[in-house]
Amino acid sequence: MTNQDPTPAPAPDDEITKHGPVEQRLGKWKGLFPKTHSLVLVNTGYGKGKTSAALGVTMRAWGRGWKICWLQFIKNKDSHYGETYAAERMGIEMIALGDGFTWLSENIEHDIKLAREAWALAKSKIMSGQYDLVVLDEITYPITYRWLQVDEVVETIRNRPKDVDIIITGREADPKLIELADTVTEMKETKHVYHTGVKAQPGIDY
Amino acid sequence: MTNQDPTPAPAPDDEITKHGPVEQRLGKWKGLFPKTHSLVLVNTGYGKGKTSAALGVTMRAWGRGWKICWLQFIKNKDSHYGETYAAERMGIEMIALGDGFTWLSENIEHDIKLAREAWALAKSKIMSGQYDLVVLDEITYPITYRWLQVDEVVETIRNRPKDVDIIITGREADPKLIELADTVTEMKETKHVYHTGVKAQPGIDY
Repeated sequence: MTNQDPTPAPAPDDEITKHGPVEQRLGKWKGLFPKTHSLVLVNTGYGKGKTSAALGVTMRAWGRGWKICWLQFIKNKDSHYGETYAAERMGIEMIALGDGFTWLSENIEHDIKLAREAWALAKSKIMSGQYDLVVLDEITYPITYRWLQVDEVVETIRNRPKDVDIIITGREADPKLIELADTVTEMKETKHVYHTGVKAQPGIDY
Repeated sequence: MTNQDPTPAPAPDDEITKHGPVEQRLGKWKGLFPKTHSLVLVNTGYGKGKTSAALGVTMRAWGRGWKICWLQFIKNKDSHYGETYAAERMGIEMIALGDGFTWLSENIEHDIKLAREAWALAKSKIMSGQYDLVVLDEITYPITYRWLQVDEVVETIRNRPKDVDIIITGREADPKLIELADTVTEMKETKHVYHTGVKAQPGIDY
């Protein structure tokens, strides 16, 4: 038995293992598998899988009937991500608040403004207590660039309403985010097809 | 711009960025973002996120209208996973073929039989060419235990039909799987709440 790959015991009620509409079972096993802790997860590192793993936890949580909100700090609403279309089809709130990695351009003031507006919205979503899970996708970048104050982000998350889980993704997570987190995974790049000249692939990468 | 966090350019057709049923747009952007390479991904390491990241890619691919099949080599069909219920609601084929981590028990022969039956089914799913993505979840364990021959798994994947992407998850991936893979991520455990005595949480971990 491993901690990352739990195999929960079968539920006591045989009814629950019978096939049928998941909605019929939802109420039952939601009660059988209550959240005992509200957690902060950080997915960082240079490898593939940070946002993917946050999406995977989102799929699990959605499968259990959780209410979820995604705030994307870098992704641009006019771009076309598989996850965006999936979230739309699943009825998950996913808001692209960025403008791509445009800090590589000349338009820094615009990026700073976007990042601060994104954080204001994220803070209101977290503090509303209306979500079981709030994902701050790629928030590490505006923090690294000092467009957002890490202390304000940490304080907000520490003081969040009970039962709101948080996932933070992005490279070079600030040490204060690592300290705050309950679980931190570094996605380490062992090998990446990108280095052979193969560009990001739809479905797999975006 | 990073390779793991691509920001694809807006599609040339403004129609696509308009709001409306995703199904209406699906055909359009599926053509706009064709798969140019069929890839093999390996998610390994001791940290959280191996299966989660495979689920995340699944959500992306599903959002793009891909046909996906999951074979779970360890998970037990009678257990209750958030991802199982999500897949059912999304219409994704997800088949639990294992019996938990029972090799820790006395019932090894039973486990070996299950693993070989699971591989036979996985092989037929891969070779059918009917899927855009086949996920071999936790297949590294039966390979590490020598219940499955890594050479047969590698040969099958090498000879798979064109356009079938493969994701392999699990700790201690065999070097032959690493060599086969296009992209390998080691999920490195920096910190895990489990070590503070907090058990796996529904939604987040299963």
